[in-house]
Amino acid sequence: MTEVYAARRSLLRERCAAAGSDAALVSGGANVRYLSGGAPAGAVLLLGPRQDLLVCPTDPAADVTGTSRPADDLPLLVLPSPEGDPAVAGAERAAEAGARALAVEEHHLTVARHRALGSVAPRLRLDDLGPAVEQQRVVKDDEEISCLRIAAEIADQALGELLESILVGRTERHLALELERRLIDHGADAPAFATSVGAGPHSGRSGHVPTDRRVEEGDFLSVCLGACYRGYRSEIARTFVIGSSPADWQIELYELVFAAQRAGREALLPGAACRDVDRAARVVLESAGHGERLGPVTGHGVGLENDEDPRLAPSAMGKLDACVPVTVDPGVHLPGRGGVRIDDTLVVRPEADGGPELLTITTKELLAL
Amino acid sequence: MTEVYAARRSLLRERCAAAGSDAALVSGGANVRYLSGGAPAGAVLLLGPRQDLLVCPTDPAADVTGTSRPADDLPLLVLPSPEGDPAVAGAERAAEAGARALAVEEHHLTVARHRALGSVAPRLRLDDLGPAVEQQRVVKDDEEISCLRIAAEIADQALGELLESILVGRTERHLALELERRLIDHGADAPAFATSVGAGPHSGRSGHVPTDRRVEEGDFLSVCLGACYRGYRSEIARTFVIGSSPADWQIELYELVFAAQRAGREALLPGAACRDVDRAARVVLESAGHGERLGPVTGHGVGLENDEDPRLAPSAMGKLDACVPVTVDPGVHLPGRGGVRIDDTLVVRPEADGGPELLTITTKELLAL
Repeated sequence: MTEVYAARRSLLRERCAAAGSDAALVSGGANVRYLSGGAPAGAVLLLGPRQDLLVCPTDPAADVTGTSRPADDLPLLVLPSPEGDPAVAGAERAAEAGARALAVEEHHLTVARHRALGSVAPRLRLDDLGPAVEQQRVVKDDEEISCLRIAAEIADQALGELLESILVGRTERHLALELERRLIDHGADAPAFATSVGAGPHSGRSGHVPTDRRVEEGDFLSVCLGACYRGYRSEIARTFVIGSSPADWQIELYELVFAAQRAGREALLPGAACRDVDRAARVVLESAGHGERLGPVTGHGVGLENDEDPRLAPSAMGKLDACVPVTVDPGVHLPGRGGVRIDDTLVVRPEADGGPELLTITTKELLAL
Repeated sequence: MTEVYAARRSLLRERCAAAGSDAALVSGGANVRYLSGGAPAGAVLLLGPRQDLLVCPTDPAADVTGTSRPADDLPLLVLPSPEGDPAVAGAERAAEAGARALAVEEHHLTVARHRALGSVAPRLRLDDLGPAVEQQRVVKDDEEISCLRIAAEIADQALGELLESILVGRTERHLALELERRLIDHGADAPAFATSVGAGPHSGRSGHVPTDRRVEEGDFLSVCLGACYRGYRSEIARTFVIGSSPADWQIELYELVFAAQRAGREALLPGAACRDVDRAARVVLESAGHGERLGPVTGHGVGLENDEDPRLAPSAMGKLDACVPVTVDPGVHLPGRGGVRIDDTLVVRPEADGGPELLTITTKELLAL
């Protein structure tokens, strides 16, 4: 695995050189992990003119969980005091190593830290690295995709077990906590994000924070969860009906959102414009009069972060590539009544390979529980 | 309650005016909540030359949890698209309102966002607000302290219930998850931070991430948890022995850390220098030869954030005031063997009022479970 991280770093180093910077300081947490294999929170990675250096506020060896370890060949600098700023120490080392221009992630560094860098290394020119590492992370390799496959399987298992248990009378909060416990049971490092459970009028709301609302007969129940496995984050959402017979409006709304989600999934192909994939799902809901109720995106990339590039939105630029994992997650929420959200994690694949690979395989039939 | 937030804002406004800024843009999440009463994630608060304005990426009314709501008298601007930057919109409004100098939180704003502010409002001078709001938050009012009191009570209850259950054979991860479920059961909005459970060789490590290590007879078991109640965060840590009879080294180490923690608590008085409180606890452990094993701090402020000013550390500046809630949390970890951490949340009170008010009341006797 070590070579993988070294290869990622040399690719980034080439891009920096081409942009006129002979060193780069990576401070975005997921970016540092992508290029180093893993590091304690707050660590920064220096791509120096001579050698790379991982600057850590605490000793990575002290991390006994082993879910995130730096590559063995990567030199480490552990700060004597956790109160020091690894970015400042990194800039000092870059200057000592003779760097003239250091590219930093201006979208991650605060103004105050950026100024601190400037003052410890006044002769060092600070350039903007921009989202270079984020862009490098968009297309995943087989190792990354297999981590996502496992993360999706874990989420499917946790969700499947929940469906076998009694739901009526339990609160959104407790269902969310139980799902998170089951994610851990099945081997997740952690939940990929805060599990969302919405019952009745809360169902279908994106990012709904679970409340003490109890599940009742006749409710829509929507659940959104994901597992983090070796840093890679899956996402799945399903909506169910509580009780034996769904109401007509529930069946209608479910079929509509399902049709939109399927249209989005079917539009996932290499070369497809991100905005066209969004359009495919959005138009189904708009034509049914739900246009103004829709969120700004109908899907997004997943990987080391739960919400990364690309974005599937009307204003999104760019096209999809093969081996890009994305979610397709349209939903409609009717204020006061509730709604439906259906969300899968998929990997973009060429038609020749059978088209998009579905990672979250829990059924999307409307289940009455 | 609305007056409270208005009063906090006018105090900050006066400080900005004194510093020569006729407007301020607050973007730190806890700072925005402190001054507005509550806001969705990503919201920023503009203290304008004419009126205040809370700029939200999403409609706060959509937050059905009700744990965080803006004060009723605070004008709202909800961005049409969540992809817009509330800080940029706030800067535009400040310029439109005729502001000449806008103080921003350079320790929260990234360089990229700061530049975006400058480009939408080129004639607006951007000053640094610095940690003005953080400083304003250090001394708590009665309302804040009663929220912390409840948050501490919730953590005591969750911990107390765990102690009544069987521990041997269960993993650190499961114990941590159960504690978090119990926090919610007892009315916490959420855990105040990731619950830490360390068994055997992991015990006594600060911020230990729970693993699949199972609790065994003869282990030290250290647990660190806290509840978030109405945004206010308690913290408590205790260490137990598993099995009927602690080993001599366990009793010795426990009594030592307990003596250090008591010394720290007893040093908490208005006017005491933060570094002297740290010293009181640290010297006990240093004199026993554990100096180089100690962390950089032996306590810290708590409130809307789990780790805020003041810091109890050798290098800390400043003195304690009355009504400042802090933790006292020394610990010693012996590599390969484990260790002890004892942590309470207290409020600094004058001796005339009986000295420091202990909020976390779970016993600190060495319990053999």
